Amino acid sequence: MVNDKYSILFEPLKIGPVTARNRFFQVPHCTGMGHLRPKADAATRAIKAEGGWAVVCNQETEIHPSSDLTPFPEGRLWDSRDIPALRLMTDAVHAHGALAAVELVHNGNHASNLSSRAPVFAPSDMAVDNIIPKQAKGMDKSDIRALRRWHRDAARRAKTAGFDIIYVYAGHHMTLPQHFLLPNMNNRMDEYGGPLENRIRLIRELLEETKDEVGDTCAVAFRFAVDEMSGADGMQASEEGRAVVEILAELPDLWDVNVSDWSNDSATSRFMPNEGYQTPYIEFVKQVTTKPVVAVGRLTSPDRMVSMIKRGVTDFIGAARPSIADPFLPQKIQTGRIEEIRECIGCNICVASDNMGVPIRCTQNPTMGEEWRRGWHPEKIETKGKETEALVVGAGPAGLECAMQLAKRGYEVTLAEACADLGGRAVLEGSLHGLSSWKWVADHRIYDLQQRGNVKTFSQSLITAQDISDLAIPNVFLATGAKWRRDGVGRSSRRAITTDPNMTVLTPDDMMSGQLPPSGPILIYDDDQIYLAGVLADHLSSAGYEIIFATPATNVSPWTENTLEQAQIQRTLIKRGVKLILGKTLTQIYADHAQLSCIYSKSEQPVEMASILLVTERRRKTELYDILRKNSDDTPFKKLKLIGDAEAPGLIADAVFSGHMAARHFEKSQSTIEREYFRREIIALEGN
Amino acid sequence: MVNDKYSILFEPLKIGPVTARNRFFQVPHCTGMGHLRPKADAATRAIKAEGGWAVVCNQETEIHPSSDLTPFPEGRLWDSRDIPALRLMTDAVHAHGALAAVELVHNGNHASNLSSRAPVFAPSDMAVDNIIPKQAKGMDKSDIRALRRWHRDAARRAKTAGFDIIYVYAGHHMTLPQHFLLPNMNNRMDEYGGPLENRIRLIRELLEETKDEVGDTCAVAFRFAVDEMSGADGMQASEEGRAVVEILAELPDLWDVNVSDWSNDSATSRFMPNEGYQTPYIEFVKQVTTKPVVAVGRLTSPDRMVSMIKRGVTDFIGAARPSIADPFLPQKIQTGRIEEIRECIGCNICVASDNMGVPIRCTQNPTMGEEWRRGWHPEKIETKGKETEALVVGAGPAGLECAMQLAKRGYEVTLAEACADLGGRAVLEGSLHGLSSWKWVADHRIYDLQQRGNVKTFSQSLITAQDISDLAIPNVFLATGAKWRRDGVGRSSRRAITTDPNMTVLTPDDMMSGQLPPSGPILIYDDDQIYLAGVLADHLSSAGYEIIFATPATNVSPWTENTLEQAQIQRTLIKRGVKLILGKTLTQIYADHAQLSCIYSKSEQPVEMASILLVTERRRKTELYDILRKNSDDTPFKKLKLIGDAEAPGLIADAVFSGHMAARHFEKSQSTIEREYFRREIIALEGN
Repeated sequence: MVNDKYSILFEPLKIGPVTARNRFFQVPHCTGMGHLRPKADAATRAIKAEGGWAVVCNQETEIHPSSDLTPFPEGRLWDSRDIPALRLMTDAVHAHGALAAVELVHNGNHASNLSSRAPVFAPSDMAVDNIIPKQAKGMDKSDIRALRRWHRDAARRAKTAGFDIIYVYAGHHMTLPQHFLLPNMNNRMDEYGGPLENRIRLIRELLEETKDEVGDTCAVAFRFAVDEMSGADGMQASEEGRAVVEILAELPDLWDVNVSDWSNDSATSRFMPNEGYQTPYIEFVKQVTTKPVVAVGRLTSPDRMVSMIKRGVTDFIGAARPSIADPFLPQKIQTGRIEEIRECIGCNICVASDNMGVPIRCTQNPTMGEEWRRGWHPEKIETKGKETEALVVGAGPAGLECAMQLAKRGYEVTLAEACADLGGRAVLEGSLHGLSSWKWVADHRIYDLQQRGNVKTFSQSLITAQDISDLAIPNVFLATGAKWRRDGVGRSSRRAITTDPNMTVLTPDDMMSGQLPPSGPILIYDDDQIYLAGVLADHLSSAGYEIIFATPATNVSPWTENTLEQAQIQRTLIKRGVKLILGKTLTQIYADHAQLSCIYSKSEQPVEMASILLVTERRRKTELYDILRKNSDDTPFKKLKLIGDAEAPGLIADAVFSGHMAARHFEKSQSTIEREYFRREIIALEGN
Repeated sequence: MVNDKYSILFEPLKIGPVTARNRFFQVPHCTGMGHLRPKADAATRAIKAEGGWAVVCNQETEIHPSSDLTPFPEGRLWDSRDIPALRLMTDAVHAHGALAAVELVHNGNHASNLSSRAPVFAPSDMAVDNIIPKQAKGMDKSDIRALRRWHRDAARRAKTAGFDIIYVYAGHHMTLPQHFLLPNMNNRMDEYGGPLENRIRLIRELLEETKDEVGDTCAVAFRFAVDEMSGADGMQASEEGRAVVEILAELPDLWDVNVSDWSNDSATSRFMPNEGYQTPYIEFVKQVTTKPVVAVGRLTSPDRMVSMIKRGVTDFIGAARPSIADPFLPQKIQTGRIEEIRECIGCNICVASDNMGVPIRCTQNPTMGEEWRRGWHPEKIETKGKETEALVVGAGPAGLECAMQLAKRGYEVTLAEACADLGGRAVLEGSLHGLSSWKWVADHRIYDLQQRGNVKTFSQSLITAQDISDLAIPNVFLATGAKWRRDGVGRSSRRAITTDPNMTVLTPDDMMSGQLPPSGPILIYDDDQIYLAGVLADHLSSAGYEIIFATPATNVSPWTENTLEQAQIQRTLIKRGVKLILGKTLTQIYADHAQLSCIYSKSEQPVEMASILLVTERRRKTELYDILRKNSDDTPFKKLKLIGDAEAPGLIADAVFSGHMAARHFEKSQSTIEREYFRREIIALEGN
C-alpha cells in the first residue's frame, strides 16, 4: 500500500530495548490539559497513535513539588497517586500499537512553586524566570542528591505507569539539567560548575541513573537544545552544543535534538516560513552518535522527510505542531493520501492555549483537545440523519469547515460565497506580509470540497433573503463574517470617536481588499491588541508607507506573547522605522491629526497624519440572519444558524471550530449537545 | 464575657428566613482554590466560622459554562455534580454555627470561556474584558431567557448544597447583571436597554426568580457596586447608584454594597491608608431600605465597627481581607483580646494569589490556605517535643514569626537581632512612602513576644559563630535575611555590570537605612519588576529628588497588576514628574551617565545622572550559616536551619510563611513533613 518512495518512513527502528514501528515520532508537547484533564489528554494522545505515529510522547511531567508549574496544568508525577492518570494515556496509546514516552522534568527556576511553596532551585542563586517575587536558591550538594533521587523515583513510577521511553530533558531554557549546562546560569565553584565536564555532570548522572533504574525495559531519551540561537552569547551548535553530544554520544538510547528557547524551537510561519528550519543546527548530531536521532522543524512534506532520513540528518521525523494539525499524517502518507494532509500553518494557537493555561486548540484541526469531551474524531463524523439538504452562506473558515463536514456527513450541500475567491478572512489575512500560510486553512477545505459529488459551490454569489427563500433549502448556516468598525468603538471606548470627515479613515478590511492608503503618514491605532494591527504595520511599512503605531497597550500586539511572537514583532517594527506610541488611547480625529491620551495621566498628545487605520473591534454581519429570522413565520426553515465570526468574532481557529461544531450538532438533540458541553473532569472528594 | 462597649456587634439579626448570630459577615472573596481545591476551600471557610463570623460566603460561583473563568479556579455550580464539593463547605461552616452563603455569578464578557468554548455574552456586542481574541455576542431575548433559567437552576442547586444565603451579584465590573445596568456597556434598544427601569430589569428578574425558587428557606442577598469611582463618566452613588437602591429597596433580603471596580473595592493601604474608606459612598443605603445592609472597607477597629452600626451606616461589619488576616477577629473582640488581632495590612497579597490562579496567601496570616493541606490552625500549634531551647538569629518577618510560634509551642526562645529595632524589612520597607502599615507585621509579633515569659529578646546584638557556640543552644534558626546587590546582576544580566567607580551606586538597603543620595538626578534601575523600585521612586520623588526610572519592563512595577496597583503606581509617578524609560536594560555605568539598551532593538541610549539606585536582585546573607555548617563536626547543633530571605528571598509573606513552617516542623519527622507537602487534590478518574 505504501508508495515505494515513502517506504523508508515506515521501516521499524529499535530505540534501546523497545522498537518503534515506523519513523513518525510525536515529540513531547504541552496540551494545557495534563494533570487537570487526564482523560482528555489520554484521548488526544490516543488519536495520534491511531493516526499512525510510532511514538507518542506526553508533555513535561513534573517530578516533585519543587517543580510546580501551577496554574499551568502540565504532566505531574509527584508520587504514586499520579500513576493511574498517566496509565490512561499509556493504555490508550498501546491499544493503537504505538510506544508511549514521558518527558520527566525538573523546571528549576522556570517553576515558581506558587502552589507547593517549596523553595525554587537553580544552579546558582538567581531570580525566578517569570515576573514573580521569588528568588531561586543555588542548590547545595544535598539538594542535588535529592534531585537525583526524585528523578530516579519518578522514572520508576513512569515505568509503572506503562511508559516505554523515559526522557531526561535539557531544553527550552526550562529545565535544571540545561540550566546547569549554561555558563550564564551556573557560576558554581564545585564539581558541578566551571568547565563543560563539570556542567554536564548532572545530565550524565540523570541519564545513568535513569538507565540503571528502568533501562532494562524502557528506552532512555535525551532531549537536548543544541543551540540557544543567540550567537556567541549562548550555547552554539558548532561549539559546546556539539561537545555535549560528543561527550554523551552513546549514553542515551535516543537523541531528541532541537534549538532553544521555546520561541526558537516553536517558531511561527510568520517569522520562519520554511519547514525544516532547524536542520542546519542539528544535522551534525547523527555524525557524532550511533544512537537514533529525532529532529523537528514543522515538517509536513513527505518528500522532505524521506530526504532527511536518506541524507542522514535524522532517523525519526519528529513533530509536535504537525501532529496536532493532523494526527493522521503518518497514515495519510502510508495510504497515499498526501493531498488530504491538514498542514500545520505555523500560527502557534496550540502554544497560546498552553500559555493561557487552557486546553489545546488548533486552527487547522478543530477536534484537537475535543476527542474526549465531545467525542470528536479528526477523520470521522456521524452520517447524516433524516435531513437531506443544507445551505451554507459564506465561504470563510467557518463556512468552509461547516460545508466540508456537512458534505462528509452526506448532505447535499450548497455553498454560496459573495466574493470571487473562497476562503474569506483566511485568504484576506493570508495576503498580508508574513501570513501567507494562513491560506492553507482555505486550501485544505476547498480541495476537499472539490473531491465531493454532493457539494455545489457558488462564488461571487451575493445571496439575498429572497434567493434563500427561492432555493427552498430548509437548513441554513450563515457564515457571513464580521467587518472591522470604522467608528473607533473598541476596548477603550464604548462610544464612537468624534471624527473630522476630512480625515481618511481606513479599516483592516479596506487594506485587505487592496485599497491603497493616501500618501503621507498613516496612524495605525490598535485597540484590538491581538495580532492584526501589528501585521498591518509590518505589511504597510514593508510596502514603503510611513507608519505611526499607537495603542493603549504598553507593547505591540501584547496577546502575541502567547504565541511567542511579541518580541520579534516589536523588534521588526522598530527595525522598519515604525514610530511606536504606547500606552495611549485615541480620543479624537481631526482633519490633519489625531489626539491621543495617556492611559495613566490622561495627558493629551497630538499626532499628525494623512490617514488613520482603525483596528479596534469587529461588527458581526447579521443583516441576512435578522431578515430571515423576522420572516421565520412565513419561511420553511428547520434550521437557521449563525456560525463563525457572524455569531461571535474570534480567531480563525474559533471560526473553524464554530463551523465544525454546527455541522456535528446538526440534527442532534439539545440534550446530546448539552451533554458534550458539560463533559468535564472534576476533583475527587474521597482520599487525600 | 463581651465588653459592653462591643455588645452591639454580637446581637443576632434576621436576614430574610435565616438569622445571623452576630454582625460579623465575611463577604464573598476568592481564594484561588474554588472548584480545583474544594477540600482546601472548605477548610479555609470553616476556620472563619470557628473564629466567630456569623456569615461565611464563598466566592463568585459560575452558574453555567458560558461563564467559564478557566484557568482561574473560582466556585463552580454548572450542574448537580458540583454540589458535593460545595456541600463540604456548607457542612463545615454549619458545624461552627455560622450561615453559609454562595455568590452566584454570570461573568458575561469578563469570562473568556477559554475552556468551555461557549459564546461570550454581553448586553451588546463588544470585545471581551481581557486581552483575549474574542468578542462577546450581544444577548438576544432567548439568551436572556436562558440566563434566567441557568440562574434559577443554580439557585436550586445551591440550596441543595446547603447554602443559607444566595447572592445575586452585580459588582466589580465583572458580572452581567451589572453590565446590563451600565449605559456604557448596554446600548440595547429593547426593554432591557435605555432608561434605568429597563437596564435594571434583569436584576429585578433574577432577584424575583431567586426568591421564588429558594426564598422559602434561603435569604436572597444582592451585592451591588453603588459607584464606579470614575465621577460623571460612570455610575455614581449620588445618582443612579442611589436610584437602584430606591427602586429595588425591599426586594432583596440583604444589601451587600461596595464600590467598583475591584481595584477600588479592594484598595491597598498604599493608596487608601484609612479603614472605612467606602463609608462615604454606601452610607445612604440604610436610609433607603429597611433590609439589613453589609458594608466593607478593610475594617479592623472594633470601636469604628460599633460606631458604624450605631450611626446607622451598616447592620453588618463586612470583611474580606480582615477575615483573611485574622479569621478569629470576631472571637478576639468577643473575648476582649483586641490587642491580639492580626490586622490586615492592606497589601493585597491575597488578591495577587487569586490573580495568579494559585491558592490564597496572606502576609499576616501564614496559615491562610494551609488549613486543609498542612492542617494548620491560625490560633493553635502543637506543644513542643523533647527539645527545650531554640535560638533565632534575626528579628525580621521570618525570625519574629518563627520565634513567636516556637514560644507558643513552649520552647525557651532566644531571639537575637543585630539592629536596634526589631522587625527587619517589615520596618525598613514600612518606613517608605505608602507602606507604613507594613510595620504591623512586626508590631503584632513583637507585642505577642512581649507577653510571653519564655522569650529573651536581644536587639543591637550582632551575633557571631563564636557567640552561638558559647550560648550552647542546640537548635538554631538563622533568619539573617538578604541584601540588595550593588553589581547590577539580576533578571536581565547574569554578569556584573561594568561600573565607573566615580559614580555613586546605591541600593534599596542604603535608602532604607536612611542614607541620602547626592544631589542631582537619580536613575532608579528596576530589573526586579515587583514593587520596591516603584515605591522608592515614589518615596524619593516625594522627598524632592529628581528621578529617572528605567526598567526592562514595558510598564512600571508590572507584578503589581496582581495587587491591582499597577495603574495607580504609574499614574502617581507620572504626576510626580518622574521620567520613565521603559523597555530598556542597563548595560554600563559611567562616571556621569548610564548606558541603556532597548530590549527589542538593542539600540543604546545614554542617561545622565548624579547617582544610580539599583533594584535588581538580592543576595542571601548566609555567612553565619556557612561558618556554623562547616564547624558542624565540632558543634552540638541538633538543628541548624536557614529561614526566610536567607533561605530564598521572596515577599514578606514568604518570609513569614518560612518562619512559621520552620517552627511547625521543628521536631517533626521528615515523613510527616513530606506528607503535608504532598497533600493535594487530584482529578477523579471514574465517571464523566
